[in-house]
Amino acid sequence: MTFTAFKPTPESIPPQNNVLRLKLSGNSLVNHHPLNPLEFLLRAALIYPNKLAIVHPDVKAPAFYTFSIWAQRVQNLAYALLKAGLKPGDRIAVIAPNVPMMADILQSALAARVILTTINTRLTPQEVAYILEHSGSKLILIDYEYLHLIEGTRIRVVVSNDTGRNGDPYEQFLSEGRQFSDEKGWLGLEMEPDENTPTMLCYTSGTTGRPKGVLTTLRGTYLAAIANAFEGQLDRNSTYLWILPMFHAAGWTFPWANTFAFATQITMRSVDYSLIWKHFLHSRVTHYCGAPTVQIGIVNDPAAKRPPQLIRAYIAGAAPTAHLISSLEEIGIEPIHVYGLTETYGPFTRSYLQESWSSLSLDERSKLMARQGHAFATAGDMRVVYRADESPSGPHGDLVDVPKDGKTMGEIVTRGNIVMKEYFKDPFATNKAFRGGYFGSGDLAVMHPDGSASILDRGKDIIISGGENASSLAIEQELASHPHILEVSVVAREHKKWGERPMAFVILHPQHASKWNSRHEEFAKELKAHARKRLPGFACPEWVEIVSDLPKTSTGKILKTELRKRLAKL
Amino acid sequence: MTFTAFKPTPESIPPQNNVLRLKLSGNSLVNHHPLNPLEFLLRAALIYPNKLAIVHPDVKAPAFYTFSIWAQRVQNLAYALLKAGLKPGDRIAVIAPNVPMMADILQSALAARVILTTINTRLTPQEVAYILEHSGSKLILIDYEYLHLIEGTRIRVVVSNDTGRNGDPYEQFLSEGRQFSDEKGWLGLEMEPDENTPTMLCYTSGTTGRPKGVLTTLRGTYLAAIANAFEGQLDRNSTYLWILPMFHAAGWTFPWANTFAFATQITMRSVDYSLIWKHFLHSRVTHYCGAPTVQIGIVNDPAAKRPPQLIRAYIAGAAPTAHLISSLEEIGIEPIHVYGLTETYGPFTRSYLQESWSSLSLDERSKLMARQGHAFATAGDMRVVYRADESPSGPHGDLVDVPKDGKTMGEIVTRGNIVMKEYFKDPFATNKAFRGGYFGSGDLAVMHPDGSASILDRGKDIIISGGENASSLAIEQELASHPHILEVSVVAREHKKWGERPMAFVILHPQHASKWNSRHEEFAKELKAHARKRLPGFACPEWVEIVSDLPKTSTGKILKTELRKRLAKL
Repeated sequence: MTFTAFKPTPESIPPQNNVLRLKLSGNSLVNHHPLNPLEFLLRAALIYPNKLAIVHPDVKAPAFYTFSIWAQRVQNLAYALLKAGLKPGDRIAVIAPNVPMMADILQSALAARVILTTINTRLTPQEVAYILEHSGSKLILIDYEYLHLIEGTRIRVVVSNDTGRNGDPYEQFLSEGRQFSDEKGWLGLEMEPDENTPTMLCYTSGTTGRPKGVLTTLRGTYLAAIANAFEGQLDRNSTYLWILPMFHAAGWTFPWANTFAFATQITMRSVDYSLIWKHFLHSRVTHYCGAPTVQIGIVNDPAAKRPPQLIRAYIAGAAPTAHLISSLEEIGIEPIHVYGLTETYGPFTRSYLQESWSSLSLDERSKLMARQGHAFATAGDMRVVYRADESPSGPHGDLVDVPKDGKTMGEIVTRGNIVMKEYFKDPFATNKAFRGGYFGSGDLAVMHPDGSASILDRGKDIIISGGENASSLAIEQELASHPHILEVSVVAREHKKWGERPMAFVILHPQHASKWNSRHEEFAKELKAHARKRLPGFACPEWVEIVSDLPKTSTGKILKTELRKRLAKL
Repeated sequence: MTFTAFKPTPESIPPQNNVLRLKLSGNSLVNHHPLNPLEFLLRAALIYPNKLAIVHPDVKAPAFYTFSIWAQRVQNLAYALLKAGLKPGDRIAVIAPNVPMMADILQSALAARVILTTINTRLTPQEVAYILEHSGSKLILIDYEYLHLIEGTRIRVVVSNDTGRNGDPYEQFLSEGRQFSDEKGWLGLEMEPDENTPTMLCYTSGTTGRPKGVLTTLRGTYLAAIANAFEGQLDRNSTYLWILPMFHAAGWTFPWANTFAFATQITMRSVDYSLIWKHFLHSRVTHYCGAPTVQIGIVNDPAAKRPPQLIRAYIAGAAPTAHLISSLEEIGIEPIHVYGLTETYGPFTRSYLQESWSSLSLDERSKLMARQGHAFATAGDMRVVYRADESPSGPHGDLVDVPKDGKTMGEIVTRGNIVMKEYFKDPFATNKAFRGGYFGSGDLAVMHPDGSASILDRGKDIIISGGENASSLAIEQELASHPHILEVSVVAREHKKWGERPMAFVILHPQHASKWNSRHEEFAKELKAHARKRLPGFACPEWVEIVSDLPKTSTGKILKTELRKRLAKL
């Protein structure tokens, strides 16, 4: 299947004399234009109409859309939403993997001025039902593979069979939109006049309690997307591979970072390492995002070898180990370590490389790279603080910066344009998160003398061992340096004498696993000895368990809550 | 003189535990931060404190400032302004070439929340007096070389001898600022809460009538600076050479584009081609801006040869000829052709390279590159329009797009965040410029089928020859392809039969000038023959005059008004 063999539906072809400009509200000012990341796509369609925008090659019915065609499809979808009776501010939901429909709706929602809820495809039907109910979604766009998640729903549903061909109900929906538009085109769609209007509604995975709906704005998305494009040097020669699910925090704003930079996006339905390597080696991929666990899978795939082009990998979700960083660099992948949360539109800090690091050993350098670093391009300031006064009195008065000693623990807080608008329908949680005039991340960290931060742990992951605070992340970093370890996670386990002690769950590297068959206890001994050389006594694991798998969220984060549940049963 | 031998004044050294954050107003929101390009410098000082920020090497007393030191000096200057009694919104003026004081004040004005007027150093004392009066400037920062421009002024003056050493009155002023701050540091300076507040006041050269004061905002400067950094791929490995005067439209926002990207800036007091080549070849320069006349001087300098690193040249102020583009590319300089006006913060369009151009001849490719192109990253839309109805009735109703035929002439108009706030104290001129809901550039252009624009001429430069509109720029483009021509300018001259006919003023290339000594008429014949092969009859020059120099503005634009005055005397 080649690009030229694919024919988009007739309704995907823009009309002659297509005007790539939204209608402005009557009282708009000449010199003040609401920030709106949809405009990046319209620019791309104007300047590079025939450049490939969306490539979806690894399915029975591959599809290839240029910026010009894609923009028309986005417009058709926007009109289809209006035809369905949706009004500005209404919520709709999408349940899909990384497919063209998903790329479309992340743009069309802005054109139709509806709020889009991107639902994690790994949730249970009950969890999905909760999100649909809580968001008040009036329409669901769903990929054929996930229909079981919404059985019996009374909300209107549009199904995509992911074919891009006539006969697909999603294509029918788009075509109806095109008919409905009456060829009014982009000028028939009014630009949202207020850049602070909500646009995306992403529910956090909610390891404790009900998931919370993170509401973000057009302005924040615009500024975060530009920052992500700039930090990774995305440009018109870039090809971005979608490994990170787009439903996760709206793809960390990369749907718009890519249109801003005129980059080509390749979509894949699932994280398949052999497919990833096919694209790395043959599709000129230059950028992708992924959590460390995904990166580990990539570097350890049998197909891994140095690609002909430089690839930049945004790593976030957890700190990369020195071992992972060196593994990536060895095959020509340049890691960009960023940090953020759904509440910060994805990344808002970066570990900025320093010239002086080039003289350091890989181990030392990797530890510096694994820091969360400094707030990035368009983010506001990041601080590590404790709360002198827990009453929410003054707006800023109660936050005290920890000393820049690399030791004193505090919470990472931030403020600025890439902090969410609010938790949807949850003013109590919003106020709590915004206490002291900053958004509290819940991540415990230290501030180094150079003003960069390192996360020690999520608050609940700290291990209190003999009265000392042991960072589970720091322990994992050191254990991961053992050459036989593929992945490791450390949690607190009750201990009669010390209160808590660390327990390590380990996946062995496939190349070395056979060596330790039926010799788990010996491996535990060896790993404990390895730890004692590198960690203080209170931080050494008291227990080591070899496992074949670790429980993870759909976005690749290890679920320590699950590990703790397992412990409770031991 | 080396970097290490330079010692900044003691007051330039930041205190221990320096906090690089401005004070926020009491009612600031957690998730909405006013856009302010001063924050780029504070970030640079936090993340790369010891990287060189400002290098001023080619003077008796060279100076070298790191981001950390420079930020402190900027803060000192801000406090010195407050000590001088200035209040938010007050105007101050600076009269200086590209020196550190100029770099400082472009940042400090934002910290002290005063409006900065950057005055062109080539103006007459009368013109300077007009601007000081019109702007209501309460303080003047001036370089020692330009004191004659303000003789007898009653405004407070701070003189810089451009030494960066104790004993310099400017250094004394900074030191007093440091004392006045009482070490309150950045947290003693309140961040401007409204991003739409005016910040720069740049007077247009005013070829007709009084100069107009172009007022720009923090938001516009922030967004334009990011776009300039992105379009030229400025980053922390970049070194920017200041050839463009910083007083010209506030240096096209590059003072902030450079801090955004953590780039090093080299300042030079004047445009000296041998110095430029010294830096190209030995100072790892990667970026600079300049009008075509400056670029011509650069490529024709005897020292010109391929530098060891890639250099990107932003070209604006007039369209580059094919000859210039090829000359730049031959020595490894990549031209980025941008277009803009003082009213658009400098560049707001760019000629975007297309893959398909690579198969074209240099001549064809250069013509495409010489187009003004499309609106860029954070600019709003650009249109080429005529006014169906000259009455300023509806906000948008009266603008009609010309057909995209590459032929029909209209005016380039734009709107969006990088359009000025207003002409200072001139609501009449502002309303006129903003007629129809767009800013009218006054530049006459055509729209090509691909949505890119080409300027034919400033309205008054069009030559009406035998009832046909002849573009003086298009004629110049063709004449410049003659290998013996260094520079050429074409204006209309009265003609009995045809109304007007083109007259060409030509500077010969030094290598070929001697050949035509006392044979000017023969050269004129040859050039006319050259023109007839390339241009329609009505556009061929009727007269050709060889000159040794062309009248130019301080920013390198050819003054056609002066050429027309000469004609009137012929």
